[in-house]
Formats: sequence, structure tokens, C-alpha cells
Amino acid sequence: MFTALDHIGIATQSLDESLALYTGVFGQEIELRETLESQGVEVVLLRCGEESIELLAPTRADSPVGKFLAERGPGLHHVAYRVDDVQAALNSARAAGIELVDLVPRIGAGGHRVAFLHPRSTGRALIELVEKPG
Amino acid sequence: MFTALDHIGIATQSLDESLALYTGVFGQEIELRETLESQGVEVVLLRCGEESIELLAPTRADSPVGKFLAERGPGLHHVAYRVDDVQAALNSARAAGIELVDLVPRIGAGGHRVAFLHPRSTGRALIELVEKPG
Repeated sequence: MFTALDHIGIATQSLDESLALYTGVFGQEIELRETLESQGVEVVLLRCGEESIELLAPTRADSPVGKFLAERGPGLHHVAYRVDDVQAALNSARAAGIELVDLVPRIGAGGHRVAFLHPRSTGRALIELVEKPG
Repeated sequence: MFTALDHIGIATQSLDESLALYTGVFGQEIELRETLESQGVEVVLLRCGEESIELLAPTRADSPVGKFLAERGPGLHHVAYRVDDVQAALNSARAAGIELVDLVPRIGAGGHRVAFLHPRSTGRALIELVEKPG
């Protein structure tokens, strides 16, 4: 069901500092930078082979990423798998007893349909599903 | 320099519970299971396309993964990049001002030469380098 990685999400207080590291030292290239106001986050996607590193900075303290930073500090935030159909994957996960954050997909970075599984059901690793058919 | 993902490391207290999720629900296949006594960790690598999910369970509480679990709890532990030459990558990282955990490579899962960068230098995301030339 989840057998293709899409990206690794990394929470940061400062996109500028993180970009100095990821583009300047690690040599990764920016493929997308956008603000998702509804989710209170600014996102930078960095190309890493067929996958991406996703840097996440909060645009307000009470956003999910803002709360994550306040509780856990910066660092690894989530792992995302690529699926053909997010709603079908959510239905299968739910049928298997996985608790969901999103019962239906929302629009994430790059305009893709995405959804999160609840870390209570996944050994505390936050898991995102990203719809990229084919 | 770091533009190819190799695996995502996930810390767990119970490999059995995690495997029930990753093989039973997520449909990932075990490619390797081994104990690295010197590092106090039992490792399961799960195939995920060209990359892997690496489940890590401590064999003793005072091991690095045991301490991580005591301090942070289970969940995402590290992200690993594939490089041609770990020693060369360590030298370049150090020259760029990155603090290293390992000044020279050690032998990790699957017999590969690996090394870790210090999370103090990498926005608190623990980064591993894995030597897989080509």
C-alpha cells in the first residue's frame, strides 16, 4: 500500500538558515516555494533524486508546524508516501484500524491531494500520503 | 553533495509491533534484519522503491537508540543520503563547517560504510551518509 517514498518533511523556524544548509552545503535545488495560508506554513521543496526534501516554516505560532516546533523543536517532521489515490488509501488504512488526521484529502504543496495518518496509529511517526498517480 | 535519499530511520521499542504495521498494513517487504551489537541496535530494512524504511530497536537502554527513545520517544530518527564515498563526503561536510558524529566511517546495516553528521549542525535533523557507489 505504501511502497514509494515521496518526500521527507523537516520543520524549521528559519527557511533562510535551512536553505543556506540544503542548497549551499548539501547542493539540493529548489523545485517549489509556496505559502499554504490555510495551514499556516511556508513550504520549500528541494529535489533529491525522484523524491524531495520538504522544508516547513510556520507563518503563525498556532499553526500545526508552529505547535510542533514549540513542543518538539526543529527537525524531522513527517515522511510522505506517494499513492495513486489518496481517498482509496485513506479508506484502506482506516479499514486496517489506522486513525486518520484527514478523513478526506486536502490540497497540499504543489496542488497535490494529500492526507495525514495520525501518529498515534503509526508508532509516532507522522505519515503523509500524496496523490501522484502512475 | 547529498542529492539521493537512501533510507528513513524510525526508532521503535518493539520491532514486532512496527513490523505488524509496516509489513501487515503498509505492505512493505523485509529486505534485511540484523543486530549491530557494537551499536546496541537491531535493524530491519524494508524495501520502499529504490529506498528503504529502517526500523531501529535498541538491544540495550544505554545505546544511542535506547537513549533517543528515553528522551524523545518513538518515531522518526534520521534521514540517510546515499553517497559515492563517505570519507570524501565527511571531509567536504567538515570543510563546510558541519560538525560530525563520525570522523571516519563505521560499518552499518548491510555491511555498508556509514557516518552521521551532528544534528547541532543540521537543523536538529540527524543525517546519515551511506556509501553506495554508482
